[in-house]
Amino acid sequence: MDLFKEKRGLKWDGTHLHFIEQTLLPGTREVITTNDWRVVVDAIKRLAIRGAPAIGVAGAYACVLAYDESAGNFEIYNQFLEKIRTARPTAVNLAWAVDRIKNCGVDEKSNSFRDKIKDEANAIAKEDEEMCIAMADFGVELIPEDSTALTHCNTGFLVTAGIGTALGVLGKAHEAGLLKEVFACEARPLRQGSRLTMWELDLLGIPGKLLCDSAVGRLMQEGLVDFVMLGADRIAGNGDTANKIGTYNLAVLAKKHSIPLYVVAPTSTIDCSISTGKKIPIEYRHEDEVRNIDDKLSTIPEAQVYNPAIDVTPNELITAIVCEKGICYPPYNL
Amino acid sequence: MDLFKEKRGLKWDGTHLHFIEQTLLPGTREVITTNDWRVVVDAIKRLAIRGAPAIGVAGAYACVLAYDESAGNFEIYNQFLEKIRTARPTAVNLAWAVDRIKNCGVDEKSNSFRDKIKDEANAIAKEDEEMCIAMADFGVELIPEDSTALTHCNTGFLVTAGIGTALGVLGKAHEAGLLKEVFACEARPLRQGSRLTMWELDLLGIPGKLLCDSAVGRLMQEGLVDFVMLGADRIAGNGDTANKIGTYNLAVLAKKHSIPLYVVAPTSTIDCSISTGKKIPIEYRHEDEVRNIDDKLSTIPEAQVYNPAIDVTPNELITAIVCEKGICYPPYNL
Repeated sequence: MDLFKEKRGLKWDGTHLHFIEQTLLPGTREVITTNDWRVVVDAIKRLAIRGAPAIGVAGAYACVLAYDESAGNFEIYNQFLEKIRTARPTAVNLAWAVDRIKNCGVDEKSNSFRDKIKDEANAIAKEDEEMCIAMADFGVELIPEDSTALTHCNTGFLVTAGIGTALGVLGKAHEAGLLKEVFACEARPLRQGSRLTMWELDLLGIPGKLLCDSAVGRLMQEGLVDFVMLGADRIAGNGDTANKIGTYNLAVLAKKHSIPLYVVAPTSTIDCSISTGKKIPIEYRHEDEVRNIDDKLSTIPEAQVYNPAIDVTPNELITAIVCEKGICYPPYNL
Repeated sequence: MDLFKEKRGLKWDGTHLHFIEQTLLPGTREVITTNDWRVVVDAIKRLAIRGAPAIGVAGAYACVLAYDESAGNFEIYNQFLEKIRTARPTAVNLAWAVDRIKNCGVDEKSNSFRDKIKDEANAIAKEDEEMCIAMADFGVELIPEDSTALTHCNTGFLVTAGIGTALGVLGKAHEAGLLKEVFACEARPLRQGSRLTMWELDLLGIPGKLLCDSAVGRLMQEGLVDFVMLGADRIAGNGDTANKIGTYNLAVLAKKHSIPLYVVAPTSTIDCSISTGKKIPIEYRHEDEVRNIDDKLSTIPEAQVYNPAIDVTPNELITAIVCEKGICYPPYNL
């Protein structure tokens, strides 16, 4: 199984989960194969598997692996499920996927139960793949001819079980001859833009250009961007969107320059239990992510650091939200 | 001469210029001592000497060294001066300082001419030192009690012949017990914030906290910043300000959050020959600054890069400009 050739971030073979070790890209191409749910949880925590939909799919398969280890002991199985659910706080897809597996029940102690949850995990992956295609079909309608996009973080095949969210749309737009170029923000601290999006764009044959997060304003000042398109970690009922840190900067600047900003995310990313973005918990990550770059000290050793992993973009800065069911425009009532 | 102990970025001893090699900070403390104007020009190009006022002072001493090499041949001397003047395009201080030396004349071929230009260079340095003190005296009036600042790039003693521009004001405010903490943006690509400002803050005993450029919006969303204070590379007659890439992002976000933004720069940074910021030339630097981090590849090797070194903040986003003569408020007529 060559995930790189297949352009897939992860794949299940019936007993093992195979996934691309994203932290080593683009320099090193490594695929990890595991039947240990703890390895999957650790990969989610380390951002070796990242992106809201991919985390959901990986979490679902982790549940199957957890069941295998529990050997049918549902008390242990449920304990494992809680650990999987809480691997990362922001992505609602993870809790959503674990709940789908959990809702398969705990009353069957037969071999068929394992098939049942495995089928559910496969269904989650399959649905994710199909949702990507649907989002691309809807989203491409928003893209003007001969246009240039700006994107943030990484939203391609690495983050889903399919072609991706925002990058899936951009790929389809490029195939359709609509898109000239994609500007990709670096996305410090972990540089998913420079490491992953630039790599995916190259793999897909889409002309890409990298810029520092600090250069977004200048790029817009120069009139080099026609629209912004990016993904989401969690969307509140009113359309407020939590996404990679820096998204809010882009959104405020895009509004200032009258550049449309589109969010592309499956409905599983929408959390209607949360009415507004103010209630979305902000994940603060370790100071070393900023202090160090690739394990090399980038500042004074004792530097204090402010390192939120996400910010929340208020709905009034979002021109439209593309999901697998269609395109939503404000006022959002999701 | 211990520049680190003296907290000075550069110093002239009568025959040689001593300067801190800024590209190696904070990991390595190295002072370069040279009597070769080409080494100074190279240092300005490499950003080993950086910051508009420091470039002016270093440029002035480079002119003296160029005169020494020309051995009184004014044709050669003038050729050298042109090379010094064009070492970096943005900082008006460099051309301004070279012109001051040039205006000392070319008609004297005696030893006293060398004294004359040396005295002029010393005067530029001395004025710079005094201007920093004056700017700090004026600027501190803007700082509320118990406040938290956000700054960008590096504006301390490394960038002047004195205590610095914006960081000079912040240092004085801290001494006066007004300032609680300074947030410092990383300032990709060359990370003058994480490498230099965090180091200077630590040296000055001011509590500092580092953040990625992408996190500025979130920081303001959380209400953690009372004001923004930063330097300038060039200020047009109408107050439009060219400064380190990312300044415009901060300014738009600060305006959105009703946070005042102050520019601190000596009048030598004001270029009244330029009426608006639209006429300020934008310096685009090498793609490798973004492609690589500390000489290590950070993206795909063939990545195309958009790398402007500065952006231009329109005057309506600037609450006040602090110079050595006082505080200017809009509408600016400099």
